[in-house]
Amino acid sequence: MTKIKYYWEDFAEGQVRDLGTVTPTREETIAFARQFDPQPFHLDDEAAKASVFGTLSASGWHTCAMAMRLMVTNFLHETSSLGSPGLESLKCLNPLFPGDTLRLQNIVLETKPLCKRADVGMTRNLWEMFNQHGDKVLHMEGWSMFRRRTPAA
Amino acid sequence: MTKIKYYWEDFAEGQVRDLGTVTPTREETIAFARQFDPQPFHLDDEAAKASVFGTLSASGWHTCAMAMRLMVTNFLHETSSLGSPGLESLKCLNPLFPGDTLRLQNIVLETKPLCKRADVGMTRNLWEMFNQHGDKVLHMEGWSMFRRRTPAA
Repeated sequence: MTKIKYYWEDFAEGQVRDLGTVTPTREETIAFARQFDPQPFHLDDEAAKASVFGTLSASGWHTCAMAMRLMVTNFLHETSSLGSPGLESLKCLNPLFPGDTLRLQNIVLETKPLCKRADVGMTRNLWEMFNQHGDKVLHMEGWSMFRRRTPAA
Repeated sequence: MTKIKYYWEDFAEGQVRDLGTVTPTREETIAFARQFDPQPFHLDDEAAKASVFGTLSASGWHTCAMAMRLMVTNFLHETSSLGSPGLESLKCLNPLFPGDTLRLQNIVLETKPLCKRADVGMTRNLWEMFNQHGDKVLHMEGWSMFRRRTPAA
């Protein structure tokens, strides 16, 4: 287990973090879709031709899962993260095609203590993923929980 | 490819659908977490003891992905589904523990035509997953797109 570097007190409104990139292969996108989202346009080139996007695209849930992986590997593993109660918004704004490179960016929108637990604080975040053309593919807003370095008095 | 049974016109406000159950094993929850959400409390019993829930829990993204799988396998594959632009709300209300059985329910909240495409309509949905104790684990609200049986005039 990595040593904790960032506690709730270390988050501040307006902080921007680049959380790295991921480039899912065709095999990976199809494998995810086969397991969790086997809609024909995520699995089959012919079916994808007749779909909204005209070519094979990844499941939106795969995009979310890859965003989570980047968050954990490139940042959360060094924090006192306690998970998240959910999201206020999740938008799939553009399709993700196999071989695209997605870059994840995190912006802290707000921080506040958690009233019912003196040792925990909350942050509200914006997470955005952009492809190699600069198109926004994913937009998520929601709360995260972190342990405090020093519990509230 | 399954024959399409349900088009946009077949959805109506208030429709309730039971979309079946899933019972993820410990191995499956750890495998998902290792790939997409390797936070210690999703991977390791000792780390989980110190977490909010006190015992190993599944990634919220795994819960979402399993909900999607139930939707596709038990309903969407018979529909003219064109995917979704996203969610307005995603709440992880209770933890999912390995071996729990989750049941998915879908309620149609609203339907409307898509102004910019005469052959497509939208539905707004509530999806909820409950565990075997009746506790709500997942709450999602958002829009889905379906091809119309008959394009708008």
